[in-house]
Amino acid sequence: RINGDRLWDSLMEMAEIGPGVRGGNNRQTLTDDDAKGRALFQKWCEEAGLTMGVDKMGNMFARREGTDPDALPVYMGSHLDTQPTGGRYDGVLGVLGGLEVIRTLNDRDIKTKHPIVVVNWTNEEGTRFAPAMLASGVFAGVHDLDWAYAREDAEGKTVGDELKRIGWVGDEEVGDRKMHAMFELHIEQGPILEDEGVDIGVVTHGQGLKWLQVTLTGKESHTGSTPMPKRRNAGLGMARVTELVHEVAMDYQPDAVGAIGHVEVYPNSRNIIPGKTVFTIDIRSPDKATLDEMDDRIRDGIDTICDALQISGEVEQVGHFDPVTFDEGCVSKVRDAAERLGYSHRNIVSGAGHDACWVNRVAPTSMIMCPCVDGLSHNEDEKIFPEWATAGADVLLHAVLESAEV
Amino acid sequence: RINGDRLWDSLMEMAEIGPGVRGGNNRQTLTDDDAKGRALFQKWCEEAGLTMGVDKMGNMFARREGTDPDALPVYMGSHLDTQPTGGRYDGVLGVLGGLEVIRTLNDRDIKTKHPIVVVNWTNEEGTRFAPAMLASGVFAGVHDLDWAYAREDAEGKTVGDELKRIGWVGDEEVGDRKMHAMFELHIEQGPILEDEGVDIGVVTHGQGLKWLQVTLTGKESHTGSTPMPKRRNAGLGMARVTELVHEVAMDYQPDAVGAIGHVEVYPNSRNIIPGKTVFTIDIRSPDKATLDEMDDRIRDGIDTICDALQISGEVEQVGHFDPVTFDEGCVSKVRDAAERLGYSHRNIVSGAGHDACWVNRVAPTSMIMCPCVDGLSHNEDEKIFPEWATAGADVLLHAVLESAEV
Ligand SMILES: NC(=O)NCCC(=O)O
Ligand SMILES: NC(=O)NCCC(=O)O
Repeated sequence: RINGDRLWDSLMEMAEIGPGVRGGNNRQTLTDDDAKGRALFQKWCEEAGLTMGVDKMGNMFARREGTDPDALPVYMGSHLDTQPTGGRYDGVLGVLGGLEVIRTLNDRDIKTKHPIVVVNWTNEEGTRFAPAMLASGVFAGVHDLDWAYAREDAEGKTVGDELKRIGWVGDEEVGDRKMHAMFELHIEQGPILEDEGVDIGVVTHGQGLKWLQVTLTGKESHTGSTPMPKRRNAGLGMARVTELVHEVAMDYQPDAVGAIGHVEVYPNSRNIIPGKTVFTIDIRSPDKATLDEMDDRIRDGIDTICDALQISGEVEQVGHFDPVTFDEGCVSKVRDAAERLGYSHRNIVSGAGHDACWVNRVAPTSMIMCPCVDGLSHNEDEKIFPEWATAGADVLLHAVLESAEV
Repeated sequence: RINGDRLWDSLMEMAEIGPGVRGGNNRQTLTDDDAKGRALFQKWCEEAGLTMGVDKMGNMFARREGTDPDALPVYMGSHLDTQPTGGRYDGVLGVLGGLEVIRTLNDRDIKTKHPIVVVNWTNEEGTRFAPAMLASGVFAGVHDLDWAYAREDAEGKTVGDELKRIGWVGDEEVGDRKMHAMFELHIEQGPILEDEGVDIGVVTHGQGLKWLQVTLTGKESHTGSTPMPKRRNAGLGMARVTELVHEVAMDYQPDAVGAIGHVEVYPNSRNIIPGKTVFTIDIRSPDKATLDEMDDRIRDGIDTICDALQISGEVEQVGHFDPVTFDEGCVSKVRDAAERLGYSHRNIVSGAGHDACWVNRVAPTSMIMCPCVDGLSHNEDEKIFPEWATAGADVLLHAVLESAEV
């Protein structure tokens, strides 16, 4: 079993970097605080005797040697970046849980045949730079490196420049590493495990996602003196698309969700009818056909809305992943570990996207989930109990040991 | 008749200060560019032999003496501040048209019994600091000076601090000046005059307005892993209120308008369901009862929307003026002037709020409107022709001369 207190202490120490305003974190990717978080993780890895490799996307790989020089490493990890108003555990638990596994192996002087690597993936959250899971996507061959470098934040800064600025462009080609397996521990970010009082989610599938960035163009004009029939209101258009996305998701739920989280209104003045709005639709389903149908219905609906309001609309897909089926062997190792340790468990579909979803394309992969209070995540009030973190890391330890062979 | 070329040249010179990105202006109130615009106006006033008085709200009063030392002055003017993406004429025409009237009187060496004052009112637009027509409101006794000083922009800077920073806090008590009459020349900002090919709008009334700032509070959570029934989506709430405002306005049009121009979404991340939205509803009608009815229906509607989405809503009125009936005597002087000069004219209701609407409470007041292309305003593409500006300033000259007595 891992050392739950030590894991918790590390989680709390990391949470001091890039604090939020309400007890959570704002440690967005490729910011100065991200660099501080990386440095702390690096220090801890050195103290645990690990060797750090860094690739050209800034992905960090901290390696513990195995006894067989030819054996491919077993990977575990997640991400240290957070949402602008994020919690302390989303991503961080997976990285520091992995570090805790290493520390436990060191304590017990356990040798494994396969090397073991803890990984911190760059820009999982996708808030500052869309899409989410950017660097694991490059690793899995889904995105080009140059395309990833060119992603821009709201201020027009690019991933490439910011990665250089914080000093984390490594030498390794992205995706050059071959993996024996990869395990990601993560909080559920949904309410199922807590509602059912289950300790461990054995993640069998991941939902698919599309991010559709919509630009509606109407005409800025005076809110007071422009007669109603003369208006070309891009804000009203955005409102109707928001309702449309909700309706479409409701039609398919519980096998679908949909919402709009990010919105820009131009020129955003109390007495100017919005001339332009830009916003991102987030739709998800564990079923690919459903996701595609939602996409079609939404695009058609946007056309109808635009025609009625005499505005124009453009839709650009800025994020996408298909539903994922995780590797059966890895899933079994997680389930067996939970069983062996006496933790209650159930199969679960991940509602969120994770680095593991991309890595699953190039290596046998699965995930372990632990509950979070009220299913709340992407919120500074995100909360888990130390016992939940301990259970998750225990299962990670056993699954990894099974895979890395003692 | 005034000198149309000189007026146009001054308009173009002022437009060089705080240029927009598409040929319009961004010279928002109490910014460095506002200070530059004030300085240019002051220089021109000095060149025209006027004496500048400034009050504690930064309102600028440039005075030409009359022959009767006891006669109250006749005022004319408007505002030099613009929207963030504003035009070159909204407000500016009224101030520089007033200056051109003075220059014309100087050219012809015409003496008037009453002194004549050109005024530039501070913060007419209300975009940076709500409400609009702030300083003329203080002048008319509608707002307290301290309350006005405490108005904050989006960054939390106050009117009082910014006025001090740009160096335009004057000595005069606000509202101490008594007026014989006040005339404001302004572009229509709507399509009526141009559509009908009429030169001059004789403004008999002004629409009433309410600005309702709404805060909806739901719960931030993950767009992927939060089941649809568990969502408390403040962005969806905002969408429904946007549609509601549109519906209510459509029910009363053409005697009402309504829209939402200013919107903030928190935390505004693609994969976070909005936990909070803050936005301002702008509703207007020339009929007070209609305006009140719209207000009631919207507040009731917001309650219903909030209940359905399990979010909470707060409504704060951040701007308000009742419909205005301008002074009959002043209105007649405008109509007679247009008639005498051979300009076509019609009565018109102002769709926008204007400083004249507040001043009308403390002095006989009216307005002169000239057309603008396509009725477009609060847009960088706002456009008028030199002949239209000339006609408006001609009518201003004659109305003012009639009032100030030669
Ligand atoms: N786990 C997580 O929140 N990932 C961010 C990508 C997503 O929105 O699903
Ligand atoms: N004239 C004008 O645009 N004034 C601003 C106040 C309003 O929105 O009516």
